[in-house]
Amino acid sequence: MILGRVVGNVVSTMKKKELDKYKLFLIESLHPKLGKNREVFVALDLVGAGIGDCVLVVKGSQAQHVFQEKTPADAAIVGIVDTVNTIDPKIF
Amino acid sequence: MILGRVVGNVVSTMKKKELDKYKLFLIESLHPKLGKNREVFVALDLVGAGIGDCVLVVKGSQAQHVFQEKTPADAAIVGIVDTVNTIDPKIF
Amino acid sequence: MILGRVVGNVVSTMKKKELDKYKLFLIESLHPKLGKNREVFVALDLVGAGIGDCVLVVKGSQAQHVFQEKTPADAAIVGIVDTVNTIDPKIF
Amino acid sequence: MILGRVVGNVVSTMKKKELDKYKLFLIESLHPKLGKNREVFVALDLVGAGIGDCVLVVKGSQAQHVFQEKTPADAAIVGIVDTVNTIDPKIF
Amino acid sequence: MILGRVVGNVVSTMKKKELDKYKLFLIESLHPKLGKNREVFVALDLVGAGIGDCVLVVKGSQAQHVFQEKTPADAAIVGIVDTVNTIDPKIF
Repeated sequence: MILGRVVGNVVSTMKKKELDKYKLFLIESLHPKLGKNREVFVALDLVGAGIGDCVLVVKGSQAQHVFQEKTPADAAIVGIVDTVNTIDPKIF
Repeated sequence: MILGRVVGNVVSTMKKKELDKYKLFLIESLHPKLGKNREVFVALDLVGAGIGDCVLVVKGSQAQHVFQEKTPADAAIVGIVDTVNTIDPKIF
Repeated sequence: MILGRVVGNVVSTMKKKELDKYKLFLIESLHPKLGKNREVFVALDLVGAGIGDCVLVVKGSQAQHVFQEKTPADAAIVGIVDTVNTIDPKIF
Repeated sequence: MILGRVVGNVVSTMKKKELDKYKLFLIESLHPKLGKNREVFVALDLVGAGIGDCVLVVKGSQAQHVFQEKTPADAAIVGIVDTVNTIDPKIF
Repeated sequence: MILGRVVGNVVSTMKKKELDKYKLFLIESLHPKLGKNREVFVALDLVGAGIGDCVLVVKGSQAQHVFQEKTPADAAIVGIVDTVNTIDPKIF
């Protein structure tokens, strides 16, 4: 999974109906070393995250396991992160 | 999902028949920080997008959920984006 | 899907038998901006492409939809490209 | 699969319940040449790994094969590495 | 698929039992242009490859088609390469 921060949201009225009941959050991946090349993508929210939250995101077909029906989405927020403990502060 | 812009289309007469009924749009991913290394790929259109539109694209096997039959395509446009709201204008 | 050019072929006598009936083409992804970092990979040909052709390639598990049986291949040529129209010539 | 080192752990109380019974380890991919751009991601532990261990990680939908039930996770530790033997020390 | 070279092997006694019957080979992707950023990963051997061999590797869930049972592996060697013919020697 990817650690990321919710940095915004996307509004799309003309979209596949299966996406209607989810918030479309803009996520910036948290990778200190990648600096300006951090990945920016859109994920559906499944745990009630909010703007600014540090989150855990599952990507690809494994994201399907959080949806009740077949959903055309390849990224889903599956956790809100409380703390990240690392042996090397330079990593995070 | 990826945010991208429809920047063109691809014409291919000799292709797998399952692709015939779809427009093949050329998408450039919208990632301000990646600058010139932005990803360019081809996606099938499922929502009536047009050239210049900012769109939401699902990639990989999760794209299969928008097709009625087994379709050899790994990217599909699933939404036309109205607005992107971010906490940091440098992100978008 | 990825736009690429057929730049060669690969000969492999000791390989999984499910691959025997396909040509193994070497593909260089067409991405003007990536310059020297273009991706080079191997795809099976399903549409009769030839060396030098510009082609449309599906990758990952969605490639399975073009094979009649379970095939250990993660990239398949699904179209020969006639033209690419873009709003910005610098993109292609 | 990816070779990585367990460099920390992630604490997330608000998460999908299917993740509750697993440790969420922070993994830094071991790729000497990528230097500072090494990938950092989160994987579930299936073999009793610990902080500092060199581990073998499976990613994507193939990770599902280690879980008893449908689990929204796209990376799992499937081995603790004893030794890596290479023909060229510069590789590892 | 990816062209790579077998550059070593990985020893892991504490691992998922489904992996026990396979050699864990260390593969360096053959991509002349990527220079030092070449990808290094671990693949299971299905065709009797050896150290130094140039090999064809399938990645992701399509790798599952070479295994008899559900196997937590996302990369498998599916061919030993005899020759690579290209129209432009700088590519390979």
